[in-house]
Amino acid sequence: MTQIRFALAQIDTCVGDLDGNADKIMRYAHLAAKNNAQVVVFPEMTLTGYPIEDLALRRTFRRAAWDKANWLATELEANGLGDLYVAVGTVGTDHASDKPRNRMVVLHDGVVWAGYDKHFLPNYGVFDEFRIFAAGDRSVVLDVDGARIGVAICEDIWQDGGPVADLAERGIDVLMTMNGSPYEEGKTHVRHELAARRAAEVHAPVIYVNQVGGQDDLVFDGGSFVVDADGTMLVRSPMFMEHLGFFDLDTTAARQSAGEIAPELDPDEEVYTACVLGLKDYMAKNRFRGVCLGLSGGIDSALVAAMAADAVGGENVQGISMPSMYSSDGSKDDAADLAANIGAKYDVQPIEPLFVAYQKQLDLDGVAAENLQARIRGVIVMAYSNSKGLLAVATGNKSELACGYSTIYGDAVGGYAPIKDLLKTRVWELSRWRNRAAAAGMGIGGLHIVGNEQGDPGKPLRNGVMIPVSSIEKAPSAELRPGQKDSDSLPEYELLDKVLAAYIEHAHGRADLLADGFDEQTVDTVMRLVDRAEWKRRQYPLGPKVTALAFGRDRRLPVTNAFRE
Amino acid sequence: MTQIRFALAQIDTCVGDLDGNADKIMRYAHLAAKNNAQVVVFPEMTLTGYPIEDLALRRTFRRAAWDKANWLATELEANGLGDLYVAVGTVGTDHASDKPRNRMVVLHDGVVWAGYDKHFLPNYGVFDEFRIFAAGDRSVVLDVDGARIGVAICEDIWQDGGPVADLAERGIDVLMTMNGSPYEEGKTHVRHELAARRAAEVHAPVIYVNQVGGQDDLVFDGGSFVVDADGTMLVRSPMFMEHLGFFDLDTTAARQSAGEIAPELDPDEEVYTACVLGLKDYMAKNRFRGVCLGLSGGIDSALVAAMAADAVGGENVQGISMPSMYSSDGSKDDAADLAANIGAKYDVQPIEPLFVAYQKQLDLDGVAAENLQARIRGVIVMAYSNSKGLLAVATGNKSELACGYSTIYGDAVGGYAPIKDLLKTRVWELSRWRNRAAAAGMGIGGLHIVGNEQGDPGKPLRNGVMIPVSSIEKAPSAELRPGQKDSDSLPEYELLDKVLAAYIEHAHGRADLLADGFDEQTVDTVMRLVDRAEWKRRQYPLGPKVTALAFGRDRRLPVTNAFRE
Repeated sequence: MTQIRFALAQIDTCVGDLDGNADKIMRYAHLAAKNNAQVVVFPEMTLTGYPIEDLALRRTFRRAAWDKANWLATELEANGLGDLYVAVGTVGTDHASDKPRNRMVVLHDGVVWAGYDKHFLPNYGVFDEFRIFAAGDRSVVLDVDGARIGVAICEDIWQDGGPVADLAERGIDVLMTMNGSPYEEGKTHVRHELAARRAAEVHAPVIYVNQVGGQDDLVFDGGSFVVDADGTMLVRSPMFMEHLGFFDLDTTAARQSAGEIAPELDPDEEVYTACVLGLKDYMAKNRFRGVCLGLSGGIDSALVAAMAADAVGGENVQGISMPSMYSSDGSKDDAADLAANIGAKYDVQPIEPLFVAYQKQLDLDGVAAENLQARIRGVIVMAYSNSKGLLAVATGNKSELACGYSTIYGDAVGGYAPIKDLLKTRVWELSRWRNRAAAAGMGIGGLHIVGNEQGDPGKPLRNGVMIPVSSIEKAPSAELRPGQKDSDSLPEYELLDKVLAAYIEHAHGRADLLADGFDEQTVDTVMRLVDRAEWKRRQYPLGPKVTALAFGRDRRLPVTNAFRE
Repeated sequence: MTQIRFALAQIDTCVGDLDGNADKIMRYAHLAAKNNAQVVVFPEMTLTGYPIEDLALRRTFRRAAWDKANWLATELEANGLGDLYVAVGTVGTDHASDKPRNRMVVLHDGVVWAGYDKHFLPNYGVFDEFRIFAAGDRSVVLDVDGARIGVAICEDIWQDGGPVADLAERGIDVLMTMNGSPYEEGKTHVRHELAARRAAEVHAPVIYVNQVGGQDDLVFDGGSFVVDADGTMLVRSPMFMEHLGFFDLDTTAARQSAGEIAPELDPDEEVYTACVLGLKDYMAKNRFRGVCLGLSGGIDSALVAAMAADAVGGENVQGISMPSMYSSDGSKDDAADLAANIGAKYDVQPIEPLFVAYQKQLDLDGVAAENLQARIRGVIVMAYSNSKGLLAVATGNKSELACGYSTIYGDAVGGYAPIKDLLKTRVWELSRWRNRAAAAGMGIGGLHIVGNEQGDPGKPLRNGVMIPVSSIEKAPSAELRPGQKDSDSLPEYELLDKVLAAYIEHAHGRADLLADGFDEQTVDTVMRLVDRAEWKRRQYPLGPKVTALAFGRDRRLPVTNAFRE
């Protein structure tokens, strides 16, 4: 009988930060050893961060990563951790083709003791791995104290055949996988089912270690787990936090014993936390300490401000109210209330004098005059960003972005756009969830998220409310002309969002949409708006993908595209 | 003995415009038949336009393309062209996997008479074909009046093995290829050498038909040609224009007879024309009739204005001079001169009153105050764009874009950026070339380019000068503070551009750059500037790729990236 303790090191790395990532690996290796683990598994491309895109093609980077892996092996041994098997992801080079490889290295006894190269290279959706990597061509079984450990990297278990099929034939005691699987709504269950299927295929438990944290437009949710050969969930790490989980393998047992299983999250909490983590990590990894944004009193900017406060604290949020002649008193009050609720810095910068100054020269009307207001606000937001070193965040949602219902260089300015993948109806749902959580005691920064692994309840909220109820309840308006409502230009959001989900996420064509029961006029309006707004989306800031199909590299359509159904 | 006349139909299609593309195919098929051709060859993905990116994944689009191909076959026959063999590119569907295919169909006798699917799918540089297509798996030889015609699509001849190797074994009389090969400096000769190599491999002439025209950030230069089995150039179409060339194949002759060979272009003319075609087609295909841009008196905006005038006529260019308190009289004069030279509409919009109005509220200094000036200009340019329905064009060059030496939402606003892939030293060279061409009689719009196939000499220039000499000669300055010069913040452009070319296009690392002989301080400054500006580049407008490595989808680096050499 062989017993092996595995540590599942669900960590948040930074792309390109070889030193920082190596230090974190050392720290978690120590912790794993202290807890009597013999094997510690890190996520895909731990050392380099993930995804590294064309950085993989840079020879000097691959060289530096190689040197760092060797340093790490030496350093582990020098720190008395030479006995530990440390499975780390990194970039390798295929010597025959000189092409990069997506590699697992196992550090042991002061050396790179074993290696495995990812076989299946995803090249769909947000992935471009066929562009940058050469595929590995052999399966690997590690022998650790007599236990046969099969290994695989992420996509290897999503495709049939390949290394897993090979391992099933060779016979293994456990399948150990490292992953960089980005978050999207509902994906957790898909992963569990997939792992259960592979466990049945190899007749052994499957260890699934996923990275956590934000990288540009992707958020990794962690949620590492182990399923037994029969699919039973044995161990599960919490989502959105760094975590070291443990799994004890008994190679002679028919069933493995269970460990800690983190509870599932509320679906709204999941998405909200994903957006916050995307923003939080973008800031941390690009060295921003605070954000600035326009607060209109509307729900989009309110939700983004709340997320920013949860990410970096209300005191690091600079809200700017920029009322025009068309702004209602209610909106100004809502903006001020929101800022007070989250403890944000709050300035009022009326745009009317600037609008008048421009109009004296330009004399615009119609949409041009509306856009002018939005662009004056954009200039002010960027002035705050430049003069105070703050990250400007854009507050557009996915419904707007889909329909082009935003002003480029106006409300679209910013380095990050936390809710760009949330349809408007989802914006309302998450706002309501955040208020419910606040009522239940979740203070500002009280999310279960990277950096709050200790479970700090957060800073108490004034009156226990985060987002002003009237921001949630009132009819949406851009307030760019008197009495304007979004519904003047767009279908009602309840309807619009259903059409958008069908057209964009489910790729329904015109005939499908009509068969779905949507009326012809709505379908034609929405399709035309979406198709024409591609050029604006191209220049929109990065923001976290949380749905099955986000704008950006997930949906690559030409700007110049005459196809209309 | 079999004699076959081939027509090489080098046409400019539009992505998604199935009707328009089909009509153009009909027109050229008529012309080919009138000139006694038996076979007419169109470029890669003629019917759909190219590249169609994720539009390939849209089932309704594939269906529509299929219907259109069948319509075209019927229509050809109905028009008395049933005897002609019409080789057209389109998107197909692999019935087994339901994945799209990059397909050649040969229309004949009223039906889709033969088909071939591209075997090698490029997935590097600007290409993502592995993402959207399934690879074809068989070679095809057409029998036309006893002549054996092997076929291939673009990348199929760039890779060894595959269909060409197969055709070499099977034996063919000619290799007929359709291509969508984007322009880059120096690529013409690479294509010729490649075709000569394949001709030797298959022991037969190679017909190379390339598309022409702009599609988002790519420009296709045409330059279709035929090389004989021994590599001799037999026929060559002009670059950057639509053209129908002819090649007469005699299957029994050891050497084929030559036809028309278009002269090569001056290297500066080539790049200048590529930029103009990128802009011209972006406008035509997105239905813009005019452009607006800020005219600073500097060389970048002058060159872009000249290109715009060559693209759509000076009368469709709206120049806007936006002097500040720091603008020199010389700059204002140069801007006015340029506008007069090209016959542009010209307005002066001083920004000082607006700057004062903002400063009353914001009280900015340093870079924030400099950016404010640029952003006021951005707002004005977009006001012209919105109120007059003009395409705003950004005037940034590649050196600026590399170093982040531009103001996002300021001088970077626009829907298209014609010189974004030109280093500053190249901007000067092309400006000088355009003036030389003007002196030699090339008027406004007199370029050899799509839409000017008839060779109109263009509208005569006032004094025979296009770009004011002082705009070319003076030291570059953003004029955002008194006495400012670009060289205060950046190395001199002569040096900077060499470092940029080495670092970006040739991917030299720090050690390589030092070995290249650049001094350490310059190397470190430039690398740091380039690495930090990625986020700005992501939001920059599209512009034509003309070098071996352009920013944009050609160089996909993460924004969040801590790697520093």
